[in-house]
Amino acid sequence: MSGPTVIFQLICPDRPGLVSELSGWVAANGGNIRHADHHTDVGAGLFLSRIEWQLQGFGLPRQAIVPATTALAQRLEGVGQLHFSDALPRVAIFVSRQDHCLLDLLWRTQAGELAMEVPLVISNHPDLQSVAEGFGARFVHLPINAATKAEVEDRQLDLLTEARIELVVLAKYMQVLSPSFLERFDGPGGFQRVINIHHSFLPAFKGAQPYHRAWDRGVKLIGATAHYVSEDLDGGPIIAQATVGVSHRDEVEDLIRKGRDTERLALSRALRLHLRRQVMVYRGRTAVFD
Amino acid sequence: MSGPTVIFQLICPDRPGLVSELSGWVAANGGNIRHADHHTDVGAGLFLSRIEWQLQGFGLPRQAIVPATTALAQRLEGVGQLHFSDALPRVAIFVSRQDHCLLDLLWRTQAGELAMEVPLVISNHPDLQSVAEGFGARFVHLPINAATKAEVEDRQLDLLTEARIELVVLAKYMQVLSPSFLERFDGPGGFQRVINIHHSFLPAFKGAQPYHRAWDRGVKLIGATAHYVSEDLDGGPIIAQATVGVSHRDEVEDLIRKGRDTERLALSRALRLHLRRQVMVYRGRTAVFD
Amino acid sequence: MSGPTVIFQLICPDRPGLVSELSGWVAANGGNIRHADHHTDVGAGLFLSRIEWQLQGFGLPRQAIVPATTALAQRLEGVGQLHFSDALPRVAIFVSRQDHCLLDLLWRTQAGELAMEVPLVISNHPDLQSVAEGFGARFVHLPINAATKAEVEDRQLDLLTEARIELVVLAKYMQVLSPSFLERFDGPGGFQRVINIHHSFLPAFKGAQPYHRAWDRGVKLIGATAHYVSEDLDGGPIIAQATVGVSHRDEVEDLIRKGRDTERLALSRALRLHLRRQVMVYRGRTAVFD
Amino acid sequence: MSGPTVIFQLICPDRPGLVSELSGWVAANGGNIRHADHHTDVGAGLFLSRIEWQLQGFGLPRQAIVPATTALAQRLEGVGQLHFSDALPRVAIFVSRQDHCLLDLLWRTQAGELAMEVPLVISNHPDLQSVAEGFGARFVHLPINAATKAEVEDRQLDLLTEARIELVVLAKYMQVLSPSFLERFDGPGGFQRVINIHHSFLPAFKGAQPYHRAWDRGVKLIGATAHYVSEDLDGGPIIAQATVGVSHRDEVEDLIRKGRDTERLALSRALRLHLRRQVMVYRGRTAVFD
Repeated sequence: MSGPTVIFQLICPDRPGLVSELSGWVAANGGNIRHADHHTDVGAGLFLSRIEWQLQGFGLPRQAIVPATTALAQRLEGVGQLHFSDALPRVAIFVSRQDHCLLDLLWRTQAGELAMEVPLVISNHPDLQSVAEGFGARFVHLPINAATKAEVEDRQLDLLTEARIELVVLAKYMQVLSPSFLERFDGPGGFQRVINIHHSFLPAFKGAQPYHRAWDRGVKLIGATAHYVSEDLDGGPIIAQATVGVSHRDEVEDLIRKGRDTERLALSRALRLHLRRQVMVYRGRTAVFD
Repeated sequence: MSGPTVIFQLICPDRPGLVSELSGWVAANGGNIRHADHHTDVGAGLFLSRIEWQLQGFGLPRQAIVPATTALAQRLEGVGQLHFSDALPRVAIFVSRQDHCLLDLLWRTQAGELAMEVPLVISNHPDLQSVAEGFGARFVHLPINAATKAEVEDRQLDLLTEARIELVVLAKYMQVLSPSFLERFDGPGGFQRVINIHHSFLPAFKGAQPYHRAWDRGVKLIGATAHYVSEDLDGGPIIAQATVGVSHRDEVEDLIRKGRDTERLALSRALRLHLRRQVMVYRGRTAVFD
Repeated sequence: MSGPTVIFQLICPDRPGLVSELSGWVAANGGNIRHADHHTDVGAGLFLSRIEWQLQGFGLPRQAIVPATTALAQRLEGVGQLHFSDALPRVAIFVSRQDHCLLDLLWRTQAGELAMEVPLVISNHPDLQSVAEGFGARFVHLPINAATKAEVEDRQLDLLTEARIELVVLAKYMQVLSPSFLERFDGPGGFQRVINIHHSFLPAFKGAQPYHRAWDRGVKLIGATAHYVSEDLDGGPIIAQATVGVSHRDEVEDLIRKGRDTERLALSRALRLHLRRQVMVYRGRTAVFD
Repeated sequence: MSGPTVIFQLICPDRPGLVSELSGWVAANGGNIRHADHHTDVGAGLFLSRIEWQLQGFGLPRQAIVPATTALAQRLEGVGQLHFSDALPRVAIFVSRQDHCLLDLLWRTQAGELAMEVPLVISNHPDLQSVAEGFGARFVHLPINAATKAEVEDRQLDLLTEARIELVVLAKYMQVLSPSFLERFDGPGGFQRVINIHHSFLPAFKGAQPYHRAWDRGVKLIGATAHYVSEDLDGGPIIAQATVGVSHRDEVEDLIRKGRDTERLALSRALRLHLRRQVMVYRGRTAVFD
């Protein structure tokens, strides 16, 4: 609507005057704030902030903003992240055989709903090559098994580095990433850079064949959970959840179909929130400024 | 709208011609069918049926309908239940200290939304006496602990028998009923006669302090589950579930408040379905003909 | 799961014994009923029935079932429709420039979620040719304006006839079909054969620019409505509706994006119900046996 | 959790530095900000802000905060409102004959969910006297008709003044307030001080018998809308909306029952947001900082 914006996210110990100090710094440099959201976790004594201002008219040149905000974060004994709304993140999508999430993400990207580029799709199966390439992404088939896992993950990390990937989305990638992969990709700052869609409404029905187990249990609702991936499998910070009603007339295959719909909704919503830098992680939870 | 109805529920082994046989029997006796719902569980080879017809004009006198349908069910090697829509079930509500579900049920009964009578409220705490009595129910305070549990349950069963109670609703009754209680109250037919509202979205967060654990986990949705009580604690057949969205701005007390709302909605909905005889239990699940 | 089924839908004046007569006819011919749903509109004195039974083992040969059920419907002074679950309906999709609904329907068809074939896509704009052809559908570009409308509709009807199309889906086709088109395509029986997705939550915000008007009004929910098309514009029988929450932070473009999601959900749900023959129309309303 | 808070709401023309100026003023006086939400309506050039900080430790004495923030608002050419979280608003509830919303509000107030006092209930019918008095509110029966309307409204305004009422809730009060009443009660600042629950999902089915008309139309969803009352009947700023699904099996009375549930949910949610001072009105719309 009115040009690119700068987005600064900060987590630091809480104390009086933080909102003023942050917004004062932006104003002192001539920035016009478009959105400002703050949250205090009183129990943990933590302050979370997301400030977005117009780049146009800001007093600092673009390349000077990163070091300036880094210094600001250090002065407040916190951790900061800076983003420019016109810098499209480069995202890799990991898939296996199911196409519903991949197609949905590629379509939404093409339609301009998700502000990202998808230069790379990696899969342990060859099935979705034409889908990926049809949308202009490179498709790399890397079969994986217990014996080759370490080696394949090395290769995946090389591909991610080569393609300058900032974020990995596991769009029904039916493999568990090793702690080593996460440590190397997420980097030392502890930033969450892998998003997963979980085939169930966490924390219920963790594990295999959730829809069969949901059917056996006779649930009246099923759901899906999009979350960051941490070493605690399926236990990473939740970004978005969705549910849909089911009845006794639904067979297992109906639950699977409805599950696909909720997976697509929860994943695309989570990804959109992430791409707009509206998600902040703290204490194993997320604050979502939407 | 057009006078009282007769409701016949049947579960029997599946074979061709069952729908015809059932509806033919009603028609042969001059019955005008208002609703007919059938479901076949192909995997289990089970046939479930609910037929509702107008009492007025039916060829059999009221007192002859029960033995006739019992004979019909036996001929089909199944189990049947018969209800008249103008016979208000007598329901006892078990509570502890929280009033939100009790008040909601009593209010809905008074408003004509729940077709039942509530002559009896039993509690292990004295707190809700005036609420119960304000709506014309007898309130019996029966403190309970591990040592007295068996004895108190005997007393509860006596009260239920005296008051000719057909259904027990656990409306935030923070005690577990013993298998012996269930066996004696549910009776030999295996009919489910106790409904519970669970303080969480089953099967997630079973057990104590679900809202604290949901908050710690950072969920984006919470819910409540109304189910029949079986010996498998919290594992009985689910009747209705409800959810509501939460955010990082919600404190534990907000989750508790939102939880209360979903509990009231799920419980009143489940009870209404039960009272209209729209719920049938099979294989640990429910078919809900709504 | 167990082979193809026969689905018979009937609407006729209500009288005692109808359920028995219908199911008796199926049973007399050796049919094993899988689903039977009936509804009585007491006010209108109408009886609606949907019966589904296994084709395998049924006593009448396939080609004899249609005349037999037609005779049955006539005897009951009603109107019947017969379908075989293994006969995939041939569906034409009408579009303009927006691709979100078209893509969603084609993808779901390919994934086996919608039991239909889509041999034909007709548009008044050339934009979506590659999308349609990518999924194997013929794409016909027919520009339309007030002067050519009658002529273009003749051409459309010819194309529908040639391709033996049973159902038309208006997937964001931004043109109004003429009464003459509907009369000729729907046929004399008054069957509803055109489904539309409406860009709003009917009956609110009928007409142009609904999302701008919803934004101006400051609504907290927006929705979409899938309905059969009747001569009363936007007034045809509603099949499915969906909503999503919005906030003051949403700009008009956010409402448009959320609107697209709800449109896809409502349209695909309505189409699936139609294809499973779970929808029956009476008195300008639908009964949905799901 | 940590003592009472001060809440300042401001609407003023947008310009750079506003967030900084506001939070700087709070910090300069030693205030510890708990929540800060800002929204810019770019089209209108308006800036909306809600800041909440701890009263304890703040540098200004309580009675000095109002004039100080008034001066601040004037300096920014805007309009401000100040609230203290420990000052319970005095609320009057207007009702007619239906009790579901009144009971729900009184119960939630008693349960501590709604931070208000309800000293006064006014009705044009005597039916709900015992309900109001059972919760400790004064009940005043003021019959009204076209001839007496002006006179009765004068009497109502006198009662509101006497009881020092800050907010009026129309909880199924089936009368229209006159523009004169609104002008006199809302006061010169244009603040919205009357909340209504509308018996439908606005803007659909405005007017009489919405559930009958919704049933005739065969809708699959019904809803309720809580909004501020403006002179444009049913056109005031929307605060909260809720919906629930319906089916062809629902009779008009089922729609009425489901409507009651959604009315209670939407109204209690709107009232809670208002009482927490999370709602701001601008350009006929609301910003809801929840």
